[in-house]
Amino acid sequence: MTPARGRLVAFEGVDGSGKSTQARILARSIGATLTFEPGATELGLALRLLLLEPGHPVPDARAEALLVAADRAQHVAQVIRPALDAGRMVVTDRFSGSTLAYQGYGRGIPIDELRGLVEWAAGGVEPDLTVLVDVPLDVARRRIDHVAADRLERLDEDFFRRVRDGYLELALQDRARWAVVDGDADVDTVAAAVRCVVEQRVDVEPVEERHA
Amino acid sequence: MTPARGRLVAFEGVDGSGKSTQARILARSIGATLTFEPGATELGLALRLLLLEPGHPVPDARAEALLVAADRAQHVAQVIRPALDAGRMVVTDRFSGSTLAYQGYGRGIPIDELRGLVEWAAGGVEPDLTVLVDVPLDVARRRIDHVAADRLERLDEDFFRRVRDGYLELALQDRARWAVVDGDADVDTVAAAVRCVVEQRVDVEPVEERHA
Repeated sequence: MTPARGRLVAFEGVDGSGKSTQARILARSIGATLTFEPGATELGLALRLLLLEPGHPVPDARAEALLVAADRAQHVAQVIRPALDAGRMVVTDRFSGSTLAYQGYGRGIPIDELRGLVEWAAGGVEPDLTVLVDVPLDVARRRIDHVAADRLERLDEDFFRRVRDGYLELALQDRARWAVVDGDADVDTVAAAVRCVVEQRVDVEPVEERHA
Repeated sequence: MTPARGRLVAFEGVDGSGKSTQARILARSIGATLTFEPGATELGLALRLLLLEPGHPVPDARAEALLVAADRAQHVAQVIRPALDAGRMVVTDRFSGSTLAYQGYGRGIPIDELRGLVEWAAGGVEPDLTVLVDVPLDVARRRIDHVAADRLERLDEDFFRRVRDGYLELALQDRARWAVVDGDADVDTVAAAVRCVVEQRVDVEPVEERHA
């Protein structure tokens, strides 16, 4: 890491947690590059369709983990690393935590095996902070009930419970790099909480000062 | 491994080596299931198009390795493992050796890093024998010059030299599991050499006896 390297903030959470909205608000407020997984590159978009579109057969668990890892490798090489190298702040909607939560806790691949894979795929790029936007399952369910569910969203309630609990466990195991924000509140309240942890934990100038 | 488990023979070599023809001949002569990589499953076919069709941008080297590994994981789960578990002989045109040769020696990813990835993707399935059909580059080049070259085939001569030399190194490092067959001869001569090493090295009944 050179002194000029930017900072990476990742948002994690189950679908319906509000993390995408919060990632967008944070990125705008600190002037960061906003990106997402899966599908931020041309290759990744093709993989996203394979992974998430209803109608495609469910891949083998390892194949699925390797596909999301491939999406990440391309995302890092093509989008994230160049932005960080240029000294930019980057906010990503999902990163390695999603693989550990969904393919690990959700689909049952041992976390130890997955850690090696996700670290290798990211080529040494790690978030300076991962913000877990946590909501109870009934709240997430209510928020996504009226939108078209993709393949992973249509998996059963037990799956989601494992993913949510897995996320909380990941956050507890690595308090230095993760922060949990209660997502069961109105958008502005959650955004203020996110902004607070980011300013405390990441070396980012508040936007008010930068624009003064 | 149960006693009833079948046997797996993998063919490796550069494009134009004749390995696909030889895989087909061997599979027929010993009554084996014939399969191939990449693209033997529905998921794999979609990945093959992403990887090999001219016009798609060249993926990052790690992303490419992860995609071929995903293809293999699906191939093992859906095709190879069920056949082996049913006690069948399986012949595959390309397997883990291709990843080590192309993404390792060819594209420069350290072999040590790739070995962990390919072993994980294959979920413990390893060929009982890998047959390297080796030809000099000018022979391979002459054979493929008149067919439409895919993206990997259009890479430069240095790339091919690294892949061929890499294959030979892999075979030398693991003589117990690899055999090198000279592919610079007519089809029948190469097929006889292949048949000979397979009968010597793999516990397979010659087809003459089985059908007697």
